[in-house]
Amino acid sequence: MHKELDLIFKRRSIRKYHDKPVSAEHVETLLRAAMAAPSASNKQPWQFVVIEDRKTLDAFTEVHAYAKMLKEATLCIAVCGDKSNRFWVQDCSAATQNILLAAAGLGLGSVWLGVHPNEEREGQVSQMLSIAPEYAPLCLIAIGHPAEEKGPSERFDPQKVHYEKW
Amino acid sequence: MHKELDLIFKRRSIRKYHDKPVSAEHVETLLRAAMAAPSASNKQPWQFVVIEDRKTLDAFTEVHAYAKMLKEATLCIAVCGDKSNRFWVQDCSAATQNILLAAAGLGLGSVWLGVHPNEEREGQVSQMLSIAPEYAPLCLIAIGHPAEEKGPSERFDPQKVHYEKW
Repeated sequence: MHKELDLIFKRRSIRKYHDKPVSAEHVETLLRAAMAAPSASNKQPWQFVVIEDRKTLDAFTEVHAYAKMLKEATLCIAVCGDKSNRFWVQDCSAATQNILLAAAGLGLGSVWLGVHPNEEREGQVSQMLSIAPEYAPLCLIAIGHPAEEKGPSERFDPQKVHYEKW
Repeated sequence: MHKELDLIFKRRSIRKYHDKPVSAEHVETLLRAAMAAPSASNKQPWQFVVIEDRKTLDAFTEVHAYAKMLKEATLCIAVCGDKSNRFWVQDCSAATQNILLAAAGLGLGSVWLGVHPNEEREGQVSQMLSIAPEYAPLCLIAIGHPAEEKGPSERFDPQKVHYEKW
């Protein structure tokens, strides 16, 4: 396999973290990676909320059933999209994937926690973070120094590939 | 910057290609990268149509206004999602981003051509590729050996970052 593609295959959902903050330099690298994503007509319809406050991280676990790891994570990035752009979900998903891959490349662990299109979760997260009404939170990304290790995934399924036609 | 993250920053939308096929090995690597993406509850609601037939590649340019580069591209991957899964757009977008990054890592050029949620395009592409009715095409990815070079993008905008709250 090609060395340069390693981070694509080594990225796994990591849900256990050490109690050690992510450096400001790494936070900026994650955000730079996010904004290096492509977007429809290069509109870049994204904004990001960076959360490190322990109270907020803990409070997310009360509004999101699958966010328990935020009790351990030292960092969360909320990826938000401009709802007036009909490609916002796609563009913000590409930005999210770049954050997950950059985290893997930096030796951090991360996991994508879906918010949109769960309306209740969207409303609660928007309220907690005072997200502007024209934006919606696509997801929360829990991030930290990994306290678990996983080998590369093996999800390749040739039955999901069609040639020329379905 | 961190060497391992290079492909995130060097990936650009490439729309000019040489007339040289993408090897079967590289096609498989692109599909492995796609399926290494995360998905909600690990449902992997994706399927892929690999198109190399010149007639089909040319025909796409008649149903998609921004797909002219498919006249030159030697490969197109249609990323399709299971419409019954409400996270399909997000999951297929992560898979798409992985394909774009893997292409960059392999020295190939690629560009994401949006199909969903344009209903007319979705219907036409579905019909051309005989996509199963429970699936929808998220996008077409034009791929080829690059005949243009672009430096890394500089899209980082600190004004799009909020700390703790919007």
